[in-house]
Amino acid sequence: MTTLNDCRALDAQDPLAPLRDLFDLPPGVIYLDGNSLGPLPRATPARVAQVVREEWGQGLIRSWNTAGWFELPGRLGDRIGALIGARPGEVVATDTTSVNLFKVLSAALSMQAADAPARRTVVSERSNFPTDLYIAETLCRERGRHLRLVEPEEIATAVDADTAVLMLTHVNYRTGAMHDMRAVTAHAHAAGALVVWDLAHSAGAVEVDLHGADADYAIGCGYKYLNGGPGAPAFVWVHPRHADRFVQPLSGWWGHAQPFAFTPGYQPAPGIARYLCGTQPVLGLAALGCGLDTLLAAQPAGGMAALRRKSLALTDLFITLVEARCAGHGLSLVTPRDHARRGSQVCLAHDEGAYAIVQALIARGVIGDYRAGRPDILRFGFTPLYLRFEDVWDAVEHLRQVMDTGEWRRPEFNQTHAVT
Amino acid sequence: MTTLNDCRALDAQDPLAPLRDLFDLPPGVIYLDGNSLGPLPRATPARVAQVVREEWGQGLIRSWNTAGWFELPGRLGDRIGALIGARPGEVVATDTTSVNLFKVLSAALSMQAADAPARRTVVSERSNFPTDLYIAETLCRERGRHLRLVEPEEIATAVDADTAVLMLTHVNYRTGAMHDMRAVTAHAHAAGALVVWDLAHSAGAVEVDLHGADADYAIGCGYKYLNGGPGAPAFVWVHPRHADRFVQPLSGWWGHAQPFAFTPGYQPAPGIARYLCGTQPVLGLAALGCGLDTLLAAQPAGGMAALRRKSLALTDLFITLVEARCAGHGLSLVTPRDHARRGSQVCLAHDEGAYAIVQALIARGVIGDYRAGRPDILRFGFTPLYLRFEDVWDAVEHLRQVMDTGEWRRPEFNQTHAVT
Repeated sequence: MTTLNDCRALDAQDPLAPLRDLFDLPPGVIYLDGNSLGPLPRATPARVAQVVREEWGQGLIRSWNTAGWFELPGRLGDRIGALIGARPGEVVATDTTSVNLFKVLSAALSMQAADAPARRTVVSERSNFPTDLYIAETLCRERGRHLRLVEPEEIATAVDADTAVLMLTHVNYRTGAMHDMRAVTAHAHAAGALVVWDLAHSAGAVEVDLHGADADYAIGCGYKYLNGGPGAPAFVWVHPRHADRFVQPLSGWWGHAQPFAFTPGYQPAPGIARYLCGTQPVLGLAALGCGLDTLLAAQPAGGMAALRRKSLALTDLFITLVEARCAGHGLSLVTPRDHARRGSQVCLAHDEGAYAIVQALIARGVIGDYRAGRPDILRFGFTPLYLRFEDVWDAVEHLRQVMDTGEWRRPEFNQTHAVT
Repeated sequence: MTTLNDCRALDAQDPLAPLRDLFDLPPGVIYLDGNSLGPLPRATPARVAQVVREEWGQGLIRSWNTAGWFELPGRLGDRIGALIGARPGEVVATDTTSVNLFKVLSAALSMQAADAPARRTVVSERSNFPTDLYIAETLCRERGRHLRLVEPEEIATAVDADTAVLMLTHVNYRTGAMHDMRAVTAHAHAAGALVVWDLAHSAGAVEVDLHGADADYAIGCGYKYLNGGPGAPAFVWVHPRHADRFVQPLSGWWGHAQPFAFTPGYQPAPGIARYLCGTQPVLGLAALGCGLDTLLAAQPAGGMAALRRKSLALTDLFITLVEARCAGHGLSLVTPRDHARRGSQVCLAHDEGAYAIVQALIARGVIGDYRAGRPDILRFGFTPLYLRFEDVWDAVEHLRQVMDTGEWRRPEFNQTHAVT
């Protein structure tokens, strides 16, 4: 049986352990919610202050040129691309995940309307992150298309001669289950469908190889595993074979071939730059750069492959310890045991509801979360950049005490309020 | 003839003069480009640092609730609304101007498609800010509508039985000419058209009364006269009579009636909240709040009415001094002399091109700007929050010297590069 000392020994030999010092984590907190909002990198406050005081305050309008503000979406995009198997010049950091999904799903539907007009369905998972479904629902209605929602095991048969686009989130936000991107994409392509991947819970969390999987479109989030800060800019990737074919509908001046020619007619920039729209949030982009630095700092120790190995070791350990030490309290594993099907989070279910257990843990400094719609699920994200094996031990020990003592049944943990 | 001492006397009796201390302006700079990027408020660095270190760093995910991050778009929107004649709950600060224009123009076209399907044209000005035209061009193509671009004096006759939407920028970015919002809106309504106003160069710059003008939709920019910082969130207003009627296509989770119910079907929030889409940039919103504080600080001295009076006094002075002291150098006034038709900027034209003159002024610390597409125009923005009458004198004196000495013809001022 694994002991606390075993966990400490794992930390002592962990080549990624020094990366924890890159973060400013509050004392007394075990942060298992980096899948919702990544924590603050130590470098971020000074960098943001520099942008505010020097670049904006002193440089004023000149900083668009002298501080390279215009190039930030592409420069950060290249660094994100390196984490997800995209090539330089193929990714931009911009706007929000929802807005970027609208762009790529619009473009994919336009392409299919031209190439395969008989294909009239967008297939997705019923348990996909809601905003993806909301965007698809409205867009399908506008374009005279049908949104078909299925269970994960039904995807393979649901993709057929009527499917224009298969739109999936690679790692499910609620269960932590991960699709086989390569196999699912190949299957969809064989059926004549395009595939849009939402990497919100993948980028910086698991190994992604967009070119290896021959994906068509991808979007993702800057404030989860990329540690870019609250509401950080999202990102968008389009395979080069598609990027120049269609104009996405948010055809703002930043996506123009010559944004400063100020000509009245829209001429889309070549490649991914046409997926830019309006003026981008410079403070947020600067913070996102610091978040990406924390991931790139793992390169000497093996990069995403090493991070993934540690992530799986952390989630394996969590599962093992929960099953050994919290048995008999009605907690069951929701996330797949199979490494190939597991993201960087572990979800547990409890018949009497997860909310109060999560609140009791938060009161002890163990921050996980809870999502309505599946009120039985406790959600724990594991980020190998800053989590120690000892933290996993401690988190499970807190969970054990919360369950053993019935602490979670206290009234103060059962008052519902807005949970994020 | 006005003298430097006259200018100093005007500053001495200016009730808005103390507001200059709210800004951190670089020494030696006369900043006449607040219409492109407002300068740094003194309060912003500490507020942004607090959000980064405390709300994000210490509060982590909990700050979505405890620090009120979710409420920021509406809270800031209410404060913007007070500057533009909107009521509480009618404005949200969110996304970019281009994205917000897409939302409102989509909604306006959907409404007309339902109410007046024979109306198939969007009318706008040929010299409107390009991103507005790019968004409208793509949207019109998608919706089977026609974008008709006309000169300002043709607008009245161009709006006819075929017009679905009249889309105008209230103050022209390149000339500083201002439309009569009330008259233009009334004329368009009489013709059966809806009106979308872009307030990018109006909000915080001139008095705007959206309800008084009976406008339909408005959007605007956070980083110009609102001093929100580079790429600050923009804003969107929809008249309450329209707000609940249609779903704008960027139907992300922040616009859902119950964003945290995580249900798969989209149910739009009532009112302006449905114009939110994805997770908003918290750092940028915090900085925008500080920018709005600088405008609200003018309330005791008379608010927007007092700011407008000083703005007109500054631009009158600039015009008078340029015409008196820079005569004979080929500079001519582009901006209307009529107060009712003038925004908060003054543009001059020069036959031999504006670029080198602007560069020579910037080298002397007088920051104005230049826009391709009309290479003869020098553009100067006047922001009464921090500009003194003495600054106007000094700016004109620099211009006089640049022209008198022929300094602007030096080779170093004629090397073109990216100009923002």
